[in-house]
Amino acid sequence: MKEIRIGLIGAGTVGGGVVKILANRTESIRRDLGLPIRLARIADKATERFTTLPVGDAICTGDANDILNDPDIDIVIELVGGTTFAKKLVLDALSKGKHVITANKALIAEFGSELFACADAHGVSLHFEAAVGGGMPVIKTIREALVGNNLFSVKTIINGTCNYILSKMSAQGLPFDTVLAEAQKNGYAEANPALDIGGGDSGHKVAIMASLVSGGYVPFSSVAIEGITSISQDDIAYARELGYTIKLLGVIKKPDDDGAIDVRVHPAMLPKNHILASVSDVFNAVLLEGDAVGQILLYGKGAGDMPTGSAVMSDIVDVARNIAAETPIRISTAHYNADRKVPVHAMDDLVSRYYLRFTVQDSPGVLASITSHLSSQSISIASVIQKEEHPETGVPVILLTHRAIEKNLRTALAAIEAMPSVMAPTQVIRIES
Amino acid sequence: MKEIRIGLIGAGTVGGGVVKILANRTESIRRDLGLPIRLARIADKATERFTTLPVGDAICTGDANDILNDPDIDIVIELVGGTTFAKKLVLDALSKGKHVITANKALIAEFGSELFACADAHGVSLHFEAAVGGGMPVIKTIREALVGNNLFSVKTIINGTCNYILSKMSAQGLPFDTVLAEAQKNGYAEANPALDIGGGDSGHKVAIMASLVSGGYVPFSSVAIEGITSISQDDIAYARELGYTIKLLGVIKKPDDDGAIDVRVHPAMLPKNHILASVSDVFNAVLLEGDAVGQILLYGKGAGDMPTGSAVMSDIVDVARNIAAETPIRISTAHYNADRKVPVHAMDDLVSRYYLRFTVQDSPGVLASITSHLSSQSISIASVIQKEEHPETGVPVILLTHRAIEKNLRTALAAIEAMPSVMAPTQVIRIES
Repeated sequence: MKEIRIGLIGAGTVGGGVVKILANRTESIRRDLGLPIRLARIADKATERFTTLPVGDAICTGDANDILNDPDIDIVIELVGGTTFAKKLVLDALSKGKHVITANKALIAEFGSELFACADAHGVSLHFEAAVGGGMPVIKTIREALVGNNLFSVKTIINGTCNYILSKMSAQGLPFDTVLAEAQKNGYAEANPALDIGGGDSGHKVAIMASLVSGGYVPFSSVAIEGITSISQDDIAYARELGYTIKLLGVIKKPDDDGAIDVRVHPAMLPKNHILASVSDVFNAVLLEGDAVGQILLYGKGAGDMPTGSAVMSDIVDVARNIAAETPIRISTAHYNADRKVPVHAMDDLVSRYYLRFTVQDSPGVLASITSHLSSQSISIASVIQKEEHPETGVPVILLTHRAIEKNLRTALAAIEAMPSVMAPTQVIRIES
Repeated sequence: MKEIRIGLIGAGTVGGGVVKILANRTESIRRDLGLPIRLARIADKATERFTTLPVGDAICTGDANDILNDPDIDIVIELVGGTTFAKKLVLDALSKGKHVITANKALIAEFGSELFACADAHGVSLHFEAAVGGGMPVIKTIREALVGNNLFSVKTIINGTCNYILSKMSAQGLPFDTVLAEAQKNGYAEANPALDIGGGDSGHKVAIMASLVSGGYVPFSSVAIEGITSISQDDIAYARELGYTIKLLGVIKKPDDDGAIDVRVHPAMLPKNHILASVSDVFNAVLLEGDAVGQILLYGKGAGDMPTGSAVMSDIVDVARNIAAETPIRISTAHYNADRKVPVHAMDDLVSRYYLRFTVQDSPGVLASITSHLSSQSISIASVIQKEEHPETGVPVILLTHRAIEKNLRTALAAIEAMPSVMAPTQVIRIES
């Protein structure tokens, strides 16, 4: 049998990791597969990158078309990033009958429906293990290992930058801006951190997981997303005092009783003995719950050249095994069909417990008014903290609610924030268990 | 395309789980696969079991030969247990060209070499995801997701009975025998618990993992195994005082410098902030470390009808995808070849830190003599606890050593135990980090 020929487009961080891993593992994979895989071509506009990588006898080029136009390339690896040029590349490669492997979460989350339809139409496969959770086998575990389950709940810490920032804020008592600057200096946050700290990166990954666990297409645009920029050192300190840890959490829940699902990304308070509360620094974790398997946790590094390269390698060998078996599409992606969009609950309908931090004037009757507004929306209070602090900027009042409907909460908060004695918008953090 | 027909042998705990999951998931799997899978026959000598299971239109029989002799059965699921009748069944089924799925860890660990050779000879596959770690995808993660890695370290808590007993001893301060009796009453330990508490069950699973990560055959007989029966409440209390937790740990290490590996199962002291130290009760975990991925943890329930049934289902769908693609053997098991036995280090050569609990007479010079014997074997002491307790049964002296060679330690202990002032054998627990 012939060799399997790979064309890699994008030799940046993850691409560099893939080149290094391929150089190390080609021989052991050849023994395992029974046929060689070869990195035949590498394309990157920044051609100076080739000089520091173990490219072997791969033909290096500044033009991705050299890979797309080479009829002997079996597998194209897209590690360009972004959703414009990358989308064109992936559609071109699939249309030319090449299998594609990508680490591009935005591309799959935003254009998965179109891309998988193209792959199906041309009888090739599109793999994306590296798009979610770096080296953790999230996609493989959901699609293959847990295929016997109705997966009704996913809770995940899936952005290393946010988890690093919240962990450091908690461990060192430093404010958000200081920790973000430190993270940027250490390479744990991008120069433009908006996609991470705004929750968009987590949202892309959660959209992909939601499509896999729901058996239908969950577009990125249907994911409710809040980032971590509003989390203050005060919130972290009060959370700790109340026995909680604040994490940026991705949540997918499939209730029994209707076809719609919850899909959301937002800061959440987790009880400090929750298994996800101990996931710190740049580590990621995915807690899956299924009707047969119970709870399963995956934990590992969700980013970085080598962990993400490890996930790309997993896809390379999967695709190579398929090519060797002449089975181009082994695992159906038909659920990504645009006609199979899964309805998603509005956040207004969420039933949750809430942490509320009010900033009020230290005057009589304020707490009574707040609780009265909450009570009029059927929201009852589980615990209260009020301390004599920051009198010049207002007194913080912290309430934990029992379970309430989010729409009712928003109505009550609008009324509370209209009170003259309320000096700032209310901080709202959902409590998960 | 035709339907895929399954014959299930053994309708006990795990078999019952598989029947239930198949009944729930047949339709969603048909949609995914594009062809139906059908539970065509079930065999169990205890035919009364059929009456309480959703067997559908499966033909139920007391004779496994009805399944082996049915030429329309594509996949045989062996859930009989044991290594005599089960081995014969599996070899018969493979020889008749049927794919086999088993949850039988003893069978794979002790006879894997012979069984995989038989499968290869007949062009069929033998799957065993359920043999290790119940619902956790241990086999799939090692063989597929982490194929781009040199996996140089595995640390695992892989027996739920032992972890339950040690967790309860630690949480409730109860002695081993009391907790074991309670575990038996609650169904967390077998009436005959020897295979669990003696470490043999963990040893079977670790032997299988060692073969997968080493890329060669590691027979069960080469695994060094110690159980938990010698762990006393005193050890657990001293461990806690010293900042450690005692777990029954499976360890596989591949050093860089020679072809031999460490493969062992024994009680180990883990620092209390170690990620495996927080794995409690019946939960299992596998911590894998690879050159590309770094650390990856899998965590979940390692036993039970439904979690183990979930793993069997994963194999059923994998094999069904292979049958649909006319690719009978997709993942090589050639490394199980008897000629590719991996050399295993003798425990005498282990370099480790140690917890030592001596039981001595309260007389002058005893500690000096003990430390002198240790020092003569180049073993140095990191910390000491000596308290005025149990004077009638002897005074406990607890030493933690720095790194030492196990052979030297055994030599020193032989000399120490020959001292008239030493009243009992020394408790030795290895310290892992």
